[in-house]
Amino acid sequence: MKPVNVGIIGFGTVGAGTVELLLANKEIITNRTGTDIIIKKIADLDIESDRGVSVDRSLMTTNAMDVINDPDIDVIVELIGGLTKAREVVTGALKNKKHVVTANKALLAEYGKELYETAFNNGVSLSFEASVCGAVPIIGALKNGLAPNRISVIKGILNGTSNYILTRMTKEGLTYDQVVQKAVEMGFAEDPPTLDVNGTDTVHKLTILISLLLGYPVALQSIYREGIVNLTPDDIRFADEFGYRVKLLAVARQRDNGIEARVHPAMIPKDSILARVDDEFNAIYLEGDFVGPSLFYGLGAGRRPTASAVVSDIMGIARAMRLGYRGFMPPLSHFSLQKEVAIHSMKDLHSAYYFRFSAFDSPGVLSMIAGILGEHDISISSVIQKGREQNSSVPIVMLTHEAREKNVIEAVSKINRLDIVSGPTVMVRVEED
Amino acid sequence: MKPVNVGIIGFGTVGAGTVELLLANKEIITNRTGTDIIIKKIADLDIESDRGVSVDRSLMTTNAMDVINDPDIDVIVELIGGLTKAREVVTGALKNKKHVVTANKALLAEYGKELYETAFNNGVSLSFEASVCGAVPIIGALKNGLAPNRISVIKGILNGTSNYILTRMTKEGLTYDQVVQKAVEMGFAEDPPTLDVNGTDTVHKLTILISLLLGYPVALQSIYREGIVNLTPDDIRFADEFGYRVKLLAVARQRDNGIEARVHPAMIPKDSILARVDDEFNAIYLEGDFVGPSLFYGLGAGRRPTASAVVSDIMGIARAMRLGYRGFMPPLSHFSLQKEVAIHSMKDLHSAYYFRFSAFDSPGVLSMIAGILGEHDISISSVIQKGREQNSSVPIVMLTHEAREKNVIEAVSKINRLDIVSGPTVMVRVEED
Repeated sequence: MKPVNVGIIGFGTVGAGTVELLLANKEIITNRTGTDIIIKKIADLDIESDRGVSVDRSLMTTNAMDVINDPDIDVIVELIGGLTKAREVVTGALKNKKHVVTANKALLAEYGKELYETAFNNGVSLSFEASVCGAVPIIGALKNGLAPNRISVIKGILNGTSNYILTRMTKEGLTYDQVVQKAVEMGFAEDPPTLDVNGTDTVHKLTILISLLLGYPVALQSIYREGIVNLTPDDIRFADEFGYRVKLLAVARQRDNGIEARVHPAMIPKDSILARVDDEFNAIYLEGDFVGPSLFYGLGAGRRPTASAVVSDIMGIARAMRLGYRGFMPPLSHFSLQKEVAIHSMKDLHSAYYFRFSAFDSPGVLSMIAGILGEHDISISSVIQKGREQNSSVPIVMLTHEAREKNVIEAVSKINRLDIVSGPTVMVRVEED
Repeated sequence: MKPVNVGIIGFGTVGAGTVELLLANKEIITNRTGTDIIIKKIADLDIESDRGVSVDRSLMTTNAMDVINDPDIDVIVELIGGLTKAREVVTGALKNKKHVVTANKALLAEYGKELYETAFNNGVSLSFEASVCGAVPIIGALKNGLAPNRISVIKGILNGTSNYILTRMTKEGLTYDQVVQKAVEMGFAEDPPTLDVNGTDTVHKLTILISLLLGYPVALQSIYREGIVNLTPDDIRFADEFGYRVKLLAVARQRDNGIEARVHPAMIPKDSILARVDDEFNAIYLEGDFVGPSLFYGLGAGRRPTASAVVSDIMGIARAMRLGYRGFMPPLSHFSLQKEVAIHSMKDLHSAYYFRFSAFDSPGVLSMIAGILGEHDISISSVIQKGREQNSSVPIVMLTHEAREKNVIEAVSKINRLDIVSGPTVMVRVEED
C-alpha cells in the first residue's frame, strides 16, 4: 500500500503536537488507517528551536512553498494561524490539488465560502475537525452520526479560557481580573486573552457549526457577540441563589422562518448537564428531531487534544485515498445549496433575563423600576433586595419571565437614566431549557 | 446520480422509525448524502399492522430472502433482533455482496468475528452505529475523530432502563420493585426487563466497544457481569451520604499487560459529569492519550434515536458509494490483527469498596468485622453505624481504601459466616477517578 505523504506548515504548539502524535502512535495509526502516514516536509520561519520532538533536520524548510509545491505530498496541514498567510497557503495547496487539514477557525469563519469553493473546484477535501473544540469530534458527528437530523438547538461552551475564568470566579469567589492575572501567570491564558473573553473565538466556532448545518457559509458578522469581562462575583453569587451557573454560551436555535445565532454570557440551570462543564473543558449540547438531546464534552484546546483532531482528519483522508475515493469530499453538507435562512435580529429575541440594578436605597425605588419594566411588558419572576443603608447604593437583583429583547433594552436604558440609579444595569440572559 | 437502494428486514419499532426518518427528512438526507436513498423492499412476518408510517404495500414482503436476493438492493438493514434468524439474514446479505447495517448488539457480541470476516471476504461493509447507545455516535467517534488515540479508560452508562430505574430509586427513594412495576406499566421497560437489569445488554455493548478498540473480537464471556437487582434505597442513600451516585457501569481499563473489562453497579463521585447522566440517558466517558477526557451523552434506545443511528450508517455507505469507494470498509480498526490482550480476572481487580453489613447490634461487632477486613489487607476509609437497638439487626456501612478483590471476596465470605451477622453483605465497587 502506497503511503500517504503529509506536509505540515506551521511548527508551533499544535504543529509540534501533530508531529509528536504521528510518531508516538505510529503503529495504531497505521493499523487503523490501513496505510502509512509519512511526514514529508515541515515548514516554519523558525526551524531552530527545540519543540520536544525529534525530527530529521532535512525535512525542515523555512519556505511554505517548498511544501505546497512538493509533488509527492498528498495532504497539507495548515497550522500557522492568522488570516493572510494562512489563506494564501490553504488556497495554494488546494489549487495544487492537495487535500488540506486546518485547525484555523478564524480563517474558516472569515473565508470559508471562498475556500470551500476552491476545494470543490479542485476536487480535493478541506477538513477542519480541530477548528471547533479541539478534541471534541463534533464536526465528524454532525457530518456523520447526526447527519439525518434536523438540529433545532445548539448550546455550546466553546472557549476553554472563558470557561476556566468563570469556573474560578464561581468556585473561589474571585474577580475577573484576579483570575485572569493568575491564568496568565500560569500560562493558561494569553496576555491579554482578548479574543477568548470578548466572545470572538466562540463566534468563529459557532459560525463554522451553523455553516455546516445550514449547508452554506454564514457571515461571521451576523452573529451577536458579548463577552464576559463585565461579570462580577456578585452576579455569579446571585445566579447561584436563583439556581443558575453563568457560562459564556454560543446559542443557535431554529425559530419560525429563521434562526437565532448569538454568543453571550448566560445563566443556565445548575442541575443541567451543561452546567457541569467546568474549568477549561468545552461542550456542545444539541437537539435533533430524531436523535433527541445530545452532549459532546472534552478539551477544546491545547497541544495534544488539538493534534488528536488534526491527525484524525489526516487519517480520514488517508483511508479514503486507500479505498479509492475519487473526487471531492464535501466540507459542508450541501450538494445543492439550500435556501438561505434569515438570522433574526437580537431585538426580536425572546428570553428570560437577570438584572442587577445599582440603586440608591430610598423608598419607592423598587416600585419605580418595576413600573418601568411593567410598561415595557416585562414581568418579574423573582427579586432579591439586600442591605438597607440610607443613601448608599445597593443592588436590586431580579429575574424576569420571558420578554422581548427590544423592550428590555428600552426599559433598561430608561432605568439607567433615573436619578435613584447609581450605575449601569447588568443584564444577563437566562437559558432555561 | 444513481440512487442507493435499501432493503429493510424487520419492520418493528426501529424498522418503522427508520422508514419514518428516511421519509420525513428526505430532503436533508439527500442534500447531505449527495444521492437519493430509496426504500426498495421491507420484509416482516407481519405486513398488516399499522406502524404509523405510510409505505407502499407493494414494497412489503414476508420473505426476507426476497430482499437479500434482490439484485437492485445495495444496502440491507437488519432490524429483526435475536440471534439465529438475524445471523442467517446478515450472512446471506454479505455473501450476496450487499453492505449491511445492523442495530443488533447481541448478534455482534456473539458472532462478530464470523460476520466481520464474511464482510471482509465479500468486500462489503458491516455498519453498526445503532448497536451501542442508539443515538450516541460513539462508534463513529472511535473509528474517526478519536482514532489516533490509545484509549486507556472507558466508563459507560450503556443501558437506559437500568439508569432510569436507579435514577428513580435515587430521586424518589423507591425500591427496585416499585420502580420496575411503574416502568413496565408505562411501557418504558420490558416485562420483566431481565437483560437490561442483569447487565447482559451492557456487556454486549462493552464487548463491541472493546473489540473496536483492540482491533479484534473479544469473547463476550470474558467480561464480568453483575446486575442492579439487589440494590436497595438504603444503599443509594448511604452512597449519597458518602458523596456518590450509584450507576450500572461498564468499565474497560488498560492495566499493565492487559485490560479490565467489567459491568456492575458502581458508586461514582456525585460531582463527576457522569453522575449527571440520569433517567433513560446513556453516556460514555473515555480517556485517550492525546484527546484527554471526553464524554458522549444522549438517548440510548427508542424508535427515533435508534433510527437516527441506522440512517446515519446508510448515509455513510451511500456517500462512499457515490464517491467511488472500492472494496471493504473495515468494521474494526485492524488491518493486521493486533496481538491479543489478556483480560484480567476479577480476582486481581484493585478497587475501593462500599460494604453494608447486616449485623446484630451487639458490642464488639464493628471491631470483629474490622478485624477480619484488616487480616485481609483491607483498610477502612469511613464508617456509618446507625441505630442502637439491642438484639436487632442494624446496618454497618463502610467505605474502604483500594483493596484487592480476591481478598475482599474472602473477607466478606468469612464475615457472612459470623453469628453476629444476620444477612449477606452488600458490596458495591467505588470508581473514584
